[in-house]
Amino acid sequence: MHPLRQHIEELVHLTDTEFDVVLSHFEQVKKRKHQYIVQEGDFVNREYWVIKGCLKSCFFDDNGKEHILQFGMENWWITDYESFIKKTPSKIAIDCLEDCDLLYISYENREKLTAQMHKMERFWAKKSKYGRIALQKRILSLLKNSAKERYNLLLEEYPKLFQRVPKKLIAAYLGVSRETLSRLSS
Amino acid sequence: MHPLRQHIEELVHLTDTEFDVVLSHFEQVKKRKHQYIVQEGDFVNREYWVIKGCLKSCFFDDNGKEHILQFGMENWWITDYESFIKKTPSKIAIDCLEDCDLLYISYENREKLTAQMHKMERFWAKKSKYGRIALQKRILSLLKNSAKERYNLLLEEYPKLFQRVPKKLIAAYLGVSRETLSRLSS
Repeated sequence: MHPLRQHIEELVHLTDTEFDVVLSHFEQVKKRKHQYIVQEGDFVNREYWVIKGCLKSCFFDDNGKEHILQFGMENWWITDYESFIKKTPSKIAIDCLEDCDLLYISYENREKLTAQMHKMERFWAKKSKYGRIALQKRILSLLKNSAKERYNLLLEEYPKLFQRVPKKLIAAYLGVSRETLSRLSS
Repeated sequence: MHPLRQHIEELVHLTDTEFDVVLSHFEQVKKRKHQYIVQEGDFVNREYWVIKGCLKSCFFDDNGKEHILQFGMENWWITDYESFIKKTPSKIAIDCLEDCDLLYISYENREKLTAQMHKMERFWAKKSKYGRIALQKRILSLLKNSAKERYNLLLEEYPKLFQRVPKKLIAAYLGVSRETLSRLSS
């Protein structure tokens, strides 16, 4: 079974014909490590789904310090949703931490597909709800938890990240220095 | 026109019959200032829509300090989405800052309505996307902006809040002390 079909069918059932229609709205693209799929200032018109690889979305503060908004790995959807939906220039950048094999759907194709196929509207509605919950948890964690607690939560939720992502990026996600991270992980 | 219909029709068009079906899935409830609609530990089964009034969702850290996750006013949807969708005990509380007139829909009714009516699936999908963008902006702001910048962003986005909500709650939302807030707003 196509990995995207497997992924979608975790939430809604599709017939063969329906999946063919869905897939025909996507394009496939390969990116090498360090390549960008979104750069600051871009008007983002694609939502990506990760077949293989690992990416990060990040931004830089006025002091040039990097902050990580989210990571993306196999089966994750990633884009700058603010730019994608509101048609504003992106405030973030998304780049590949490994060689990546990606599917993407344009905004227009996503609109067309969800308008004509209730099942796909339902699928993305559910995905969007889960995305929202993850962001809510992140805000609670940023406001409430100590660095040690944030580290443990991340480790618990995404154990694989720690094997694939450089320590300094984990630190940038948690909002701590690399030295603090070394102390936390020891 | 019913205020809920007006609100929904900003995103999807409904016939009279369709709106009657939608409305039949809601219940109306009035709450007085200081009453809770969600308490920590609740299994939340309702999503609320504000006809009139103002609410806050908040949580307390281990030191008993209050943090505000979001405010809700007329035309806003509010609940603990994590608890509502994942059926986990709520980590937050939602209470009324003014007397409130609310509509709510149960999880089961929302599932039923979205399954049978593509337009409502589409409506909530869009709403959920906007909610996600708001949360993403909040995370960026928490990681990137100074207290002064966060204050200005909130003032710009929700000017009415500053007339309706006590200063100490604005401070709790921004994650600053009341003294700092007085300095920022002067």
